[in-house]
Amino acid sequence: MANITKKVSWSSRGDEGTPLLNGSETRRHSKEDSVRGRPKEIPHNEKLLSLKYESLDYDNIENQLFLEEERRMSYMGFRCLEISRWVVCGLIGFLTGLIACFIDIVVEQLAGIKYQVVKENIERFTEVGGLSISLILWAVLNSIFVMVGAIIVAFFEPIAAGSGIPQIKCYLNGVKIPRVVRLKTLVVKVCGVICSVVGGLAVGKEGPMIHSGAVVAAGVSQGRSTSLKRDFKIFEYFRRDTEKRDFVSAGAAAGVSAAFGAPVGGVLFSLEEGASFWNQMLTWRIFFASMISTFTLNFFLSIYHKNPGDLSNPGLINFGRFENDSVAYYLYEIPLFIAMGAIGGLLGALFNVLNYWLTIFRIRYVHRPCLQVMEAMLVAAVTATVSFTMIYFSDDCQPLGPEHTEEYPLQLFCADGEYNSMATAFFNTPERSVRSLFHNQPGSYNPLTLGVFTLTYFFLACWTYGLTVSAGVFIPSLLIGAAWGRLCGILLATISATGSIWADPGKYALIGAAAQLGGIVRMTLSLTVILVEATGNVTYGLPIMLVLMTAKIVGDYFVEGLYDIHIKLQSIPFLHWEAPATSHWLTAREVMSSPVTCLNKVEKVGTIVDTLSNTSTNHNGFPVVVQGASSEEPAKLCGLILRSQLIVLLKHKVFVELARSRLTQRKLQLKDFRDAYPRFPPIQSIHVSQDERECMMDLSEFMTATPYTVPQDTSLPRVFKLVRALGLRHLVVVDDENRVVGLVTRKDLARYHLGKHGLEELQLAQT
Amino acid sequence: MANITKKVSWSSRGDEGTPLLNGSETRRHSKEDSVRGRPKEIPHNEKLLSLKYESLDYDNIENQLFLEEERRMSYMGFRCLEISRWVVCGLIGFLTGLIACFIDIVVEQLAGIKYQVVKENIERFTEVGGLSISLILWAVLNSIFVMVGAIIVAFFEPIAAGSGIPQIKCYLNGVKIPRVVRLKTLVVKVCGVICSVVGGLAVGKEGPMIHSGAVVAAGVSQGRSTSLKRDFKIFEYFRRDTEKRDFVSAGAAAGVSAAFGAPVGGVLFSLEEGASFWNQMLTWRIFFASMISTFTLNFFLSIYHKNPGDLSNPGLINFGRFENDSVAYYLYEIPLFIAMGAIGGLLGALFNVLNYWLTIFRIRYVHRPCLQVMEAMLVAAVTATVSFTMIYFSDDCQPLGPEHTEEYPLQLFCADGEYNSMATAFFNTPERSVRSLFHNQPGSYNPLTLGVFTLTYFFLACWTYGLTVSAGVFIPSLLIGAAWGRLCGILLATISATGSIWADPGKYALIGAAAQLGGIVRMTLSLTVILVEATGNVTYGLPIMLVLMTAKIVGDYFVEGLYDIHIKLQSIPFLHWEAPATSHWLTAREVMSSPVTCLNKVEKVGTIVDTLSNTSTNHNGFPVVVQGASSEEPAKLCGLILRSQLIVLLKHKVFVELARSRLTQRKLQLKDFRDAYPRFPPIQSIHVSQDERECMMDLSEFMTATPYTVPQDTSLPRVFKLVRALGLRHLVVVDDENRVVGLVTRKDLARYHLGKHGLEELQLAQT
Repeated sequence: MANITKKVSWSSRGDEGTPLLNGSETRRHSKEDSVRGRPKEIPHNEKLLSLKYESLDYDNIENQLFLEEERRMSYMGFRCLEISRWVVCGLIGFLTGLIACFIDIVVEQLAGIKYQVVKENIERFTEVGGLSISLILWAVLNSIFVMVGAIIVAFFEPIAAGSGIPQIKCYLNGVKIPRVVRLKTLVVKVCGVICSVVGGLAVGKEGPMIHSGAVVAAGVSQGRSTSLKRDFKIFEYFRRDTEKRDFVSAGAAAGVSAAFGAPVGGVLFSLEEGASFWNQMLTWRIFFASMISTFTLNFFLSIYHKNPGDLSNPGLINFGRFENDSVAYYLYEIPLFIAMGAIGGLLGALFNVLNYWLTIFRIRYVHRPCLQVMEAMLVAAVTATVSFTMIYFSDDCQPLGPEHTEEYPLQLFCADGEYNSMATAFFNTPERSVRSLFHNQPGSYNPLTLGVFTLTYFFLACWTYGLTVSAGVFIPSLLIGAAWGRLCGILLATISATGSIWADPGKYALIGAAAQLGGIVRMTLSLTVILVEATGNVTYGLPIMLVLMTAKIVGDYFVEGLYDIHIKLQSIPFLHWEAPATSHWLTAREVMSSPVTCLNKVEKVGTIVDTLSNTSTNHNGFPVVVQGASSEEPAKLCGLILRSQLIVLLKHKVFVELARSRLTQRKLQLKDFRDAYPRFPPIQSIHVSQDERECMMDLSEFMTATPYTVPQDTSLPRVFKLVRALGLRHLVVVDDENRVVGLVTRKDLARYHLGKHGLEELQLAQT
Repeated sequence: MANITKKVSWSSRGDEGTPLLNGSETRRHSKEDSVRGRPKEIPHNEKLLSLKYESLDYDNIENQLFLEEERRMSYMGFRCLEISRWVVCGLIGFLTGLIACFIDIVVEQLAGIKYQVVKENIERFTEVGGLSISLILWAVLNSIFVMVGAIIVAFFEPIAAGSGIPQIKCYLNGVKIPRVVRLKTLVVKVCGVICSVVGGLAVGKEGPMIHSGAVVAAGVSQGRSTSLKRDFKIFEYFRRDTEKRDFVSAGAAAGVSAAFGAPVGGVLFSLEEGASFWNQMLTWRIFFASMISTFTLNFFLSIYHKNPGDLSNPGLINFGRFENDSVAYYLYEIPLFIAMGAIGGLLGALFNVLNYWLTIFRIRYVHRPCLQVMEAMLVAAVTATVSFTMIYFSDDCQPLGPEHTEEYPLQLFCADGEYNSMATAFFNTPERSVRSLFHNQPGSYNPLTLGVFTLTYFFLACWTYGLTVSAGVFIPSLLIGAAWGRLCGILLATISATGSIWADPGKYALIGAAAQLGGIVRMTLSLTVILVEATGNVTYGLPIMLVLMTAKIVGDYFVEGLYDIHIKLQSIPFLHWEAPATSHWLTAREVMSSPVTCLNKVEKVGTIVDTLSNTSTNHNGFPVVVQGASSEEPAKLCGLILRSQLIVLLKHKVFVELARSRLTQRKLQLKDFRDAYPRFPPIQSIHVSQDERECMMDLSEFMTATPYTVPQDTSLPRVFKLVRALGLRHLVVVDDENRVVGLVTRKDLARYHLGKHGLEELQLAQT
């Protein structure tokens, strides 16, 4: 691994006085390095930074057209816009709630049928022998569901795989992940998650809700669907990255809110993932979307459950109410909770490390769609087999309670009036299993059952995450944690003399669940609120916080959170919150790309076409300069224009000569740019004749006339702060006479990260 | 009012080509205007913007000294810093919790004694007649307490008046309010709040906790106390505005957390008030401080209540647990809740309008400390008298329950075994009254009692807020709302046929309390979480959100929130989240101050002293320019230096000539600046001899070498976004040759606001 890590060696870098290698050369150089010194193993992707991802423009393009529109707009116009933002957020919440409702009902129906069939089959064969037929039936049923789920994902929309949370994190961070917020992705995601949950994989349907909400938001806010070729001619003002991002964060929050019945948790989730663009009005809109989402879900589920109007049981997952004892926990339990948090951190780190290796294996060897489908089917079959074996060999029989908390109690070899306890954990949707672990009476599970279950489910869940199916990791994590947490509770009760106060293993199950989930995903604030809202009880807020904090600290010592690992493995240029602490050494001069292709304010069409066609000058943004009066005077920066804008200009042939000859020609408006957004055609599809190449284009009306700039000596943390806080895509580096000397983009900043040996520089690659 | 509103008239402003009036002239001009056309009434302060408030530097001063220090620091150094940040946050939480605990216990003890004395007195005189003596005793007792509280505030530290929330909001926003985070303020605040609560005013002790937490944070994080002249020589790295602000937001969160037992609510409070500087690590530290704070308070209170180790009853105020009915509320109750939200919004707006007039009255006529003390005593006496009268004339007798929920049941004229219901509302600390309204059995209050109580308490609370005592408005608002909310519940139960489902007026009391508080302070997200955490029940989360949202929308239609009103009345240049919507017309050219006093890179000491002494050039920051090779070439911007830095340089006589002659002279270090922070001496106290005036000072090492700049044509919203997102104090406006043409500061941006007639410009005044 060491031979591909290119540490930033300060001695070889020029000091202020000496000339520096320019950025692109350094890169080509380092790339050659890795080719020459061919490593024995394929380079890990997390040591690379992919160049294929474009950035989003989270800074408004303030050109003349935009300013004119804003100035024309009256105060009432802005009020109307504000109101339509609220309307859009309401719609986002409503639709997200509906989708959650749909998923929930379909899963419940299909899973019900499946478990009923298998249960009847098992009961038939328990007496007469030949349970292997039941096993095969179960495994085949699971595999079929999973196969369908995997096929649609692998062949139709690979981006719909997994929970989608890393992708949404990246989107909010400003990375354009192709196809991530398309309608097709949503359809595949919804169908995929239904298949994988019904297929009995160790997955949850909650994570994908976040992605679904984000897609809904991106769709609704644009007032059109490019896939369906329908344009409703509404919300045209919102057709730019800045506005869209705000709505997507509302959609993600609505997704969390629907999944866990946690509107505040949803807002905090969006906040923890993308706080750099926060403001109060936006917070409230996001909150509104979250509320509507929970509300819609509750309302329709209450009708479905034939109890209309009862809104007090929100969310796809419901942890059930914890009894309000007079004293929920004692001071001396706090150290125990913290210890459990540490265990959660350790187990989470183990989970992440195993999954990391597995993902690298998958990247190398399982990249063909058919292989991916086969792997998913294999996992489904193995899951069924393992479950069946565990149930078969378990002799943990429990009396059937009068309240029938179990949906599908399996008697198997137990006496009449008893049920197999292991089966409640496996033979159920994971959501129900979590609830049973939280709330079943003390003594419902024997310790061995829990231990074995934890162990098997841990590896199953770890194997499952990263399969080419739509599925989340929240519920499996909670289930693993609840199992070992309950085990801890039982063990504590056994070793302590005063058994009474330890009487509630459900409490420990909750703490364990929080610890395990925290150890894997490493969220703290939002997760605390989500768990508190899902349990419907604030009493356990403090222990949950402590546990999550401990799990994070312990886990971070070993390895990053699961989502961050997957983001890194995809070589996405993700900008963290701050520049690495020890990066004050670096200045804009060293991190910027240089030389930069600049355009003149009035530029020849041929030059522009050539520039856009040349992929090596691919910053997607070009500083615009104006020549001084005399030719000796240097060209000063006067604006910045994006590739997408130039494409639109070329498409509409906005040439100086044509404007003169055809007086009637319509002036290009902001609407033309909005219509082309977000899928601008490639330069190759635009035909420019040889005559037209000689024409001139006047960019002054279309460029951002006041781009943000920094001097060359600005330190990296300062540059980073500016780019991160304002969501910039391009930052122009100028000298003290306002001449362009370089350009800083996302990749230039994301390259630097703190590794084990101090500051490291990632390589850029075209992968 | 119209004659002092100077609307921005576009025609009179120069267009791009014509020369502009410079900023300071415009201002003097407009000031004269208002003097000449002397208005009949004194100008309302909210139409002015005070120049007396300085800004804080929430952008790091990146000069050579700073960069050298950062570069010298190893990775371990940064880790240690990070750990000490966590330690400081822990300390902040611990101390804030302790203070809350202290206030709670002292108030409970003193109030207990007071009520016991008065109660015995009343009981003695009920039979024999002469209850007027009891009244006088009660009124005198109250007045004495309030007098003490008012005297220490009015004479020793006027900034400790009120809840302190507006001040902390301003601090986090970047406005330097003098003395707001000093130790003396804390002492006065704590004593003052005890006096005013024990003195029976319609106030709460929760708001001041936020201020107290902030002061603790500012003190602890600096590792020294300037007031006590103790320097512990620790945490020196944190002696700058950026770091201090982060800790102050943690302190504010810890304060909320201690006051309401709401750690998540605390974090969200800090977030809603100052989200522009947010990042993930900071969030977690703030969360940690909040947790420790609740935890400390719980722990010590559990010992005080002789139930050590029971940590499940957090916060100064505890709303008590709402029973978990199977169905908390039905769908058809939602419109009712929303209607109550609207009522809350209306009543809140009324409260704010009344308080606004009252505050203007106070600003004009009650500005001498003795008058202020007398007013406070008057309010205390009136409060006692009104309470007494109400109790006296009330004939609402209720049977004394077996559970003795009332701490001081007053029998008065009721039969034996009964108590006066009106007395429970008045003859109690407001916290207990709120709890009674939430949880007492249906029928404990008769509607008339509640109606009369709401009415009187509303006006009392309105009169009380803004008195020169330390006190908060949270609890009185909750109490008013709970009273009319319960009234609504009772009325609904009366008019509906199916009485059973309306059986719980406590639920309506909770909703009413939320509506009233929301209508007054207009927070949504944080308040939702605070109320949910304080009730310990997530079930009512959704209705509370709806109600708060409605109250905010309705209230905002009429008037701003209470805190914003008070900020405006103090003419504080508060920067809102975004520039006014219709301000795209304005560019940096129009808003900037110009001409700007610039300094040369190597400047004569005499010039610097004169510049600093001249109060008319008072931007507290000076662009540093460097002259070109030939004298014709214009001077280019090369840095920015602050008044405070220049003062330190002058004090240490860092002159070029002295450095040459005295080779042994110690080089000035960052430590010298940190030692002087934050109370830099005035220029008058620094003696510079005539010889020294001829010396030169080299600023290059001390100035921020890479200040942020914008071109002249940048639109106001763009400038605003940059300043707000990065917390800038000075933004240099340059032309396209990098020459300084102006300076944008906080006041230049805060001047513009959306009034009833579109964009308005506030006048700047020296008040």
